[in-house]
Amino acid sequence: MTAEIITIGDELLIGQIINTNQAYIAEKLNGVGIYCERMTTVGDNAEVITDAFTTAFNRVDVVCVTGGLGPTHDDITKKIVCEFFKTDLVMNDEVLDHIKSLAQKRNIAMIQSNIDQALVPKDSTVIPNHIGTAPGMMFKRGSKYFFIMPGVPYEMKEMIDSWILPLLEKKNTESVVRHKTLKTTGIGESMLAQQIGNVAEVIGTDGMTTLAFLPNPMGTKLRITVKEKSAESAQEKIVRAEQFLRSKIEKYIYSDDEKDLEDVVGDLLKMKNLTLATAESCTGGLIANRITNVSGSSEYFLGGFVVYSNQLKIEELGVPEKLILDFGAVSKEVAEAMADGARLTAKADIALSATGIAGPTGGTSEKPVGLCWIGYSDAEITFAIKFNFGDNRIRFKERASQAALELLRRKLMKLS
Amino acid sequence: MTAEIITIGDELLIGQIINTNQAYIAEKLNGVGIYCERMTTVGDNAEVITDAFTTAFNRVDVVCVTGGLGPTHDDITKKIVCEFFKTDLVMNDEVLDHIKSLAQKRNIAMIQSNIDQALVPKDSTVIPNHIGTAPGMMFKRGSKYFFIMPGVPYEMKEMIDSWILPLLEKKNTESVVRHKTLKTTGIGESMLAQQIGNVAEVIGTDGMTTLAFLPNPMGTKLRITVKEKSAESAQEKIVRAEQFLRSKIEKYIYSDDEKDLEDVVGDLLKMKNLTLATAESCTGGLIANRITNVSGSSEYFLGGFVVYSNQLKIEELGVPEKLILDFGAVSKEVAEAMADGARLTAKADIALSATGIAGPTGGTSEKPVGLCWIGYSDAEITFAIKFNFGDNRIRFKERASQAALELLRRKLMKLS
Repeated sequence: MTAEIITIGDELLIGQIINTNQAYIAEKLNGVGIYCERMTTVGDNAEVITDAFTTAFNRVDVVCVTGGLGPTHDDITKKIVCEFFKTDLVMNDEVLDHIKSLAQKRNIAMIQSNIDQALVPKDSTVIPNHIGTAPGMMFKRGSKYFFIMPGVPYEMKEMIDSWILPLLEKKNTESVVRHKTLKTTGIGESMLAQQIGNVAEVIGTDGMTTLAFLPNPMGTKLRITVKEKSAESAQEKIVRAEQFLRSKIEKYIYSDDEKDLEDVVGDLLKMKNLTLATAESCTGGLIANRITNVSGSSEYFLGGFVVYSNQLKIEELGVPEKLILDFGAVSKEVAEAMADGARLTAKADIALSATGIAGPTGGTSEKPVGLCWIGYSDAEITFAIKFNFGDNRIRFKERASQAALELLRRKLMKLS
Repeated sequence: MTAEIITIGDELLIGQIINTNQAYIAEKLNGVGIYCERMTTVGDNAEVITDAFTTAFNRVDVVCVTGGLGPTHDDITKKIVCEFFKTDLVMNDEVLDHIKSLAQKRNIAMIQSNIDQALVPKDSTVIPNHIGTAPGMMFKRGSKYFFIMPGVPYEMKEMIDSWILPLLEKKNTESVVRHKTLKTTGIGESMLAQQIGNVAEVIGTDGMTTLAFLPNPMGTKLRITVKEKSAESAQEKIVRAEQFLRSKIEKYIYSDDEKDLEDVVGDLLKMKNLTLATAESCTGGLIANRITNVSGSSEYFLGGFVVYSNQLKIEELGVPEKLILDFGAVSKEVAEAMADGARLTAKADIALSATGIAGPTGGTSEKPVGLCWIGYSDAEITFAIKFNFGDNRIRFKERASQAALELLRRKLMKLS
């Protein structure tokens, strides 16, 4: 089965918001073997929306539409879909009851625009919206499906997960698509490709297995994709390709199941029964924030110190003032003292630290913007490693947090 | 002038990465009065890419393509574009020199795939890539433009900003599109719409002015769009619409120029010459991370305490152990004590705190997942406010950080 995703909204076309719905839907469809062939984004314009509906519904089996179902005047999807499927809106009592109970629960007065949200096309099937007011809709024509969902990401996600996917999974039996992603960090894309060498050896040239290189500031993901008749043969090909890649670049791979580095180090810390603390200057709390994005992180993460001022470095972490005066706040010596200080103050087994110049200003010729020291401390060893993460402040912080977590991973796994 | 954006990559179609390039390009084009009519995403498939090129180049004036220019085997855009424009690849010495110098600077050995990146279509104009190895390309046919850029976001952005936009800005003189966005927080979308009332009064019904409601976990953005013949009349209409909206919902508007809340409170703190510290439990460093995303934040942000363990709450922030025993770590009393403790320890003028249950586990009937206390402390007053941010961990943290910063903004602006 093939799919197309249509996202509707002027806010997307003027670039005001980033389209995360497309990726979510595509990934989920893929998981049940439905390949998304195209994604189209159009504005709040009846003619263009109708054209997109027509083209998509002609060429694929499943069309997923999001956006334009809200309570405000710029939401026109429902009207257009009625014209497209030649039907009318009728009041749906079940939906209305749901909206009323939601309003009551949230202690919000019902207004006319809320009531109008309970109007749905006559011959559609309602997809319940458990967390919001706008219902989703499904039309089925022959073997084809047309789904319409709200543009609010978490409402859309809930509909995909609890309603649409279970339905589609049952219908799609013709082919199996399987992916495996190996996430690497600490090595550039070209160098990674060179170390891997001739991929055709393993993936073949029939186009049924592909290997993609996906670089981002956190590292490069390697994605193996296999399309096969059966789950068994797909699985076999995935395993063979993964073994080949591991034989070439094992130490750079931190995850093979879409886990982020914070999940991976969390698992390692839990397994080894170790606790962690952080001392951050240039990363400003991002390392702690990433660690605590993991549910259950309170088991191993004791806490962190965001020591932006030198005073806090000295008073909270016990960094000797003389070190700051002699070497500067951005130095190997201070990174090491911060890591030691965080570990001892928080009574943790391990501590990570980061001090650097995130920019875009504040660099000197000796210590340019982008310079960063990442420190590590445990009961046996303290050290710091020098990096340059470039002159974009946000990217600098991302890359520095990634390097700190990777340093911890390699240490915990006893990798060089 | 109209535009279409084509993003290429299997990684997009399987939803492995979120497409941020589209939004960036669309926003920039819009700023110079070029309206993006459609965005299309296709996979690494020659036939589909060619079809997308053909359709787009027929219906709009400017086509922007990203993706598939990397050094690895799955990057096929250059080959397809040569066929599309009936031309061949030739070695470009300037590009080759640039790649060589980049490799030298980064201390990386040149390999064949790097050298191949200097191959460009014969009758295209090279768009220099100052920060990466893959050059961009421009084709001009009549009054139409066709741009091809790498998929790596920061390389693409640099080409748009320093090369493509200056060129297009000179060419487009026929119409002016202006946007103004008012960012609100602390009020739901429906209630906001109701408080605003009849927008048609102000924006008219000719379709040349539009108002869009854009909800997200951080709040709701209101976007006014005006399409006019002259910059002056566009500006006038924008001002009128903004005045109308402000007369209805002033206190919820925290930004009118795309600034984030962390930028706004940063400006206020700088203006008032006040310093800030944070004490975070459930937000795990996100508040500090957002504050330090702002360049120059070291002027007013002294530091933060991520006190995940009770021990650190007690020892670092001086939260009385009795408070934790009597009221629990997630309580008004502890939120207030954390804020006081952070302020005194960091010697800051103001401190914010957050303690809550981010979930998805750990809730009780009395203190459910989603419960959060946000605390505030300055020399004159200490208080905490209760919220419920729902049961999605990441969204909980986002919403809690937003509520904390909004609380600070309202306090600094003396709003109720």
